[in-house]
Amino acid sequence: MSLYRRVLIVGGVAGGATCAARLRRLDEEAEIVVFERGPHVSVATCGLPYWIGDVIQEEARLLQATPEVFARNFNVPARTGHEVTAIDRASREIEVRELASGRVYREPYDALVLSPGARPIRPACPGIDLPGIFTLRSIEDSRRIREWIATRQPRRAVIVGAGYIGLEMAENLTQRGLTITVVEALPQVLPLLDAEMAEPVSRHLETHRVDLRLGDGAASFEAGADGGLVVRTASGARLEADLVLLAMGVKPEVKLAVEAGLDIGEAGGVRVDDTMRTSDEHIWAVGDAVEVRDAVTGRWRLVPLAGLAHRQARVAADAIAGRPSRFRGAQLTSVCGFFGMTVAATGASEKVLRSAGTTDYDTVYLHPGDHAGYYPNARPIHLKLIFAKADGRILGAQAVGEQGTEKRIDVLSVAIQKGATVFDLEEVELCYAPQYGAAKDPVNMAGMIAANVLRGDLEPAPWSELPGTAALIVDVRDPHEFAADHIEGAINLPLGELRRRFEELPRASEIWLYCGVGQRSYYALRFLRQRGFNVRSLPGGYQTYWGFYP
Amino acid sequence: MSLYRRVLIVGGVAGGATCAARLRRLDEEAEIVVFERGPHVSVATCGLPYWIGDVIQEEARLLQATPEVFARNFNVPARTGHEVTAIDRASREIEVRELASGRVYREPYDALVLSPGARPIRPACPGIDLPGIFTLRSIEDSRRIREWIATRQPRRAVIVGAGYIGLEMAENLTQRGLTITVVEALPQVLPLLDAEMAEPVSRHLETHRVDLRLGDGAASFEAGADGGLVVRTASGARLEADLVLLAMGVKPEVKLAVEAGLDIGEAGGVRVDDTMRTSDEHIWAVGDAVEVRDAVTGRWRLVPLAGLAHRQARVAADAIAGRPSRFRGAQLTSVCGFFGMTVAATGASEKVLRSAGTTDYDTVYLHPGDHAGYYPNARPIHLKLIFAKADGRILGAQAVGEQGTEKRIDVLSVAIQKGATVFDLEEVELCYAPQYGAAKDPVNMAGMIAANVLRGDLEPAPWSELPGTAALIVDVRDPHEFAADHIEGAINLPLGELRRRFEELPRASEIWLYCGVGQRSYYALRFLRQRGFNVRSLPGGYQTYWGFYP
Repeated sequence: MSLYRRVLIVGGVAGGATCAARLRRLDEEAEIVVFERGPHVSVATCGLPYWIGDVIQEEARLLQATPEVFARNFNVPARTGHEVTAIDRASREIEVRELASGRVYREPYDALVLSPGARPIRPACPGIDLPGIFTLRSIEDSRRIREWIATRQPRRAVIVGAGYIGLEMAENLTQRGLTITVVEALPQVLPLLDAEMAEPVSRHLETHRVDLRLGDGAASFEAGADGGLVVRTASGARLEADLVLLAMGVKPEVKLAVEAGLDIGEAGGVRVDDTMRTSDEHIWAVGDAVEVRDAVTGRWRLVPLAGLAHRQARVAADAIAGRPSRFRGAQLTSVCGFFGMTVAATGASEKVLRSAGTTDYDTVYLHPGDHAGYYPNARPIHLKLIFAKADGRILGAQAVGEQGTEKRIDVLSVAIQKGATVFDLEEVELCYAPQYGAAKDPVNMAGMIAANVLRGDLEPAPWSELPGTAALIVDVRDPHEFAADHIEGAINLPLGELRRRFEELPRASEIWLYCGVGQRSYYALRFLRQRGFNVRSLPGGYQTYWGFYP
Repeated sequence: MSLYRRVLIVGGVAGGATCAARLRRLDEEAEIVVFERGPHVSVATCGLPYWIGDVIQEEARLLQATPEVFARNFNVPARTGHEVTAIDRASREIEVRELASGRVYREPYDALVLSPGARPIRPACPGIDLPGIFTLRSIEDSRRIREWIATRQPRRAVIVGAGYIGLEMAENLTQRGLTITVVEALPQVLPLLDAEMAEPVSRHLETHRVDLRLGDGAASFEAGADGGLVVRTASGARLEADLVLLAMGVKPEVKLAVEAGLDIGEAGGVRVDDTMRTSDEHIWAVGDAVEVRDAVTGRWRLVPLAGLAHRQARVAADAIAGRPSRFRGAQLTSVCGFFGMTVAATGASEKVLRSAGTTDYDTVYLHPGDHAGYYPNARPIHLKLIFAKADGRILGAQAVGEQGTEKRIDVLSVAIQKGATVFDLEEVELCYAPQYGAAKDPVNMAGMIAANVLRGDLEPAPWSELPGTAALIVDVRDPHEFAADHIEGAINLPLGELRRRFEELPRASEIWLYCGVGQRSYYALRFLRQRGFNVRSLPGGYQTYWGFYP
């Protein structure tokens, strides 16, 4: 017996499709109908940049299923080209418009699932509607961009926004032969990262000839003399372009929900409980249109990630079938790759913690190789771990590197989910053979360093206070390393000479040590501490200084 | 104040070196001396096969540190070429022989750490000492093999033993131009895996022209007519070889401990408590010579893995410095790569569970792509998940694939460490962009399938009972898939026709469904179950059948 005889689902691109399929598996009797405004269901939206870049070579690959498959395999009609225009909660009916014919009709429901998604942000700038200015969210958007590239053969692209989509598109348009300028109103790329972790990303983009304009948003668009476009930035810069991509993030599609009087949350998404039920007991909502609890801070936020949409869809289907599933919130594990670089993160950033009013945390930086250094082609992973001072609980992690980068974030994601501490990370047993990892994996190293901090074995010096500090800066690397480059004002006393020469150091003032990545300075710190010196170590050493604090 | 003034460490290759360095960081005052029989300290033993294969091109890269570095950076003399020959527990002294001079001397200790490692197994077969028969454990072993290859230009190698080292050497000797025969007394390769998971590994080796002789051990060795060797196997096969590698595993070096009357455990290693202390309160032991608790089954066992040796060394150093660290046991996370294949595992195998008397577990198989199928070059990962029936706790996992294989095992390793259940895996948030993973990652899929089993939504049919089952086998794939190949005796009823044709199926007998990988058969099962049929699904579908049950 179905709890709800007739279940209507609004939106079939991601969450809606999953919800329909899951619900059918649980309930063969219910009538389930999907309404989708666009022409497709089950679209691999995350693949669109790679289709534009010709990495994915057939449009058909982006369709994970078709209405025919839904009908045949799930006995679920998917009405594409049908837009749901209103919800009549009192009579439990929706109003639908068939886009092709303009016909408007009503359909009754016992349960309604909203999965309308989100739409790209288009600021109300002058010239925003000029030809050649695109957003990217659907297969149709992608077709338009591909068509523009094929017919206009653009040479110069301006991408507005340096988030994941913007940077993926920087790579894919480079692939198509365009030169790229990225305009970002914020002073950093990838707002999900803390600012210092975004630094090596910016440099990498510049190495790949991306002209980065940070802290300078697009202000207006004009038609150019040569049939192209001109982008004017807030600072007055004039950028010529043959193609403009707006990649400024997305806004939840809440119009239906607002007009139906459903609760909207503080972050601007549909408010749901942990069974994905809205403020109306017959209506559920999933995907990019809802706001969710941040699993680390407990705050409501908008998190447009595909994995979460599918999870929420399962929870909603379970709820409608009378099962006790719960959505645990969003931990914000994400990854992005471009020009051979991988950027991944999980949990809270410092930024997010601070805005949530949390201050009881500490951070470590490290730069381990992705695999054992004695095996060829190890590449550094720049890793930041954020953990609670009180109990060592892991709060977040960010990583920038090449191979093996997202693997460490995946490991840390599970650790956060299960409430693991930095002490647990010391003990994690990860796969080690020389081409895959190290006897002390980067994750172990992160745990060890953080545990050293919490046990009081390693007092980190704050990078932010380096400019103007009264501390003596001591570089414990070998003289040839010091000679090549060093922190301004530092003196050199190599670890290997420390036991012989330590009395040269002052006992009155604080000493801040550093080395290449933090290992030798830790050894030196342990020695000097036991000799009674007042000593700290700059986390991650010269690699952090060079990489993150330009 | 040091708890122990004078700390002597026997063995400096792996655990001993780590223990010395860690202890120095905690205690600047103690006198710490390392005694190492061989010429090196801190050797990257796991790299030896790759040095032989010329993947690692300099011997020096295998030395992670030298006695000079130990003296200079840690104030720890490392006496290489000094063998510890006896422990006098009553007087707290060791007896040492300087190998170069033959001089024997005694050294007193307050604390003693044994890190003697393990030695390769050499069976007492006729001819075992013939020239051209090698083991591989040290840099010197590697030099001998390299020298043999350089001077003799061998064409045919016989490798005795199909464990991790044996298969890594199969690849590296192939790399050097040899043709390879692997002889293994057990009926499968990689004894750490359950037998069915080893099947695709065997096929992969055969694809790479490795002549595999399973269930047939080496019985004797003879000099061949052409200056080569002849290996005779237990079954009477005669294999010609120009080089023989014995890769039959290792035995803990317990001679010193036995002669000193220290407790030896049931698995044959030095018995220690969870601070790595032996039955003598002044003696600790770490690394391949000790036996450890299996973190899943609680049983004592020998686990010669580098990561564990380092962890144990830290625990012992902490204990000697008066700190409360504990060794949690060994979870047996491991990985091995050869010929483009990655094999990884964590936790207990079915084999291990059965031998520990555990029967309250279930398993699922799946064959997901390492990343989204719509992005090019996705490759299947064959994954087996073992979990407790009672509460869904994850007990073990095994994976065979290419890229991204060990990543999933790493994720599952943390999950096991933190006591996660299959229900947690449904919710794990992992990195998803199309080149890295999927909106439903293989780990999520494993959790969902296992949770389906535990919730009673999916009744798995036991593969082991397929031969001779009275059940009706129904292939729900499309007719062209069925036509290409199918399980003998199966009938074809495609999922897409099921709702129309289900009445053709018998209600009296049990029905076992399968498809390609298990998804469509699950959909079909959900439908038929709700129509009152007695139905099960063969886990992992035709991929499991084809891959694992030849």
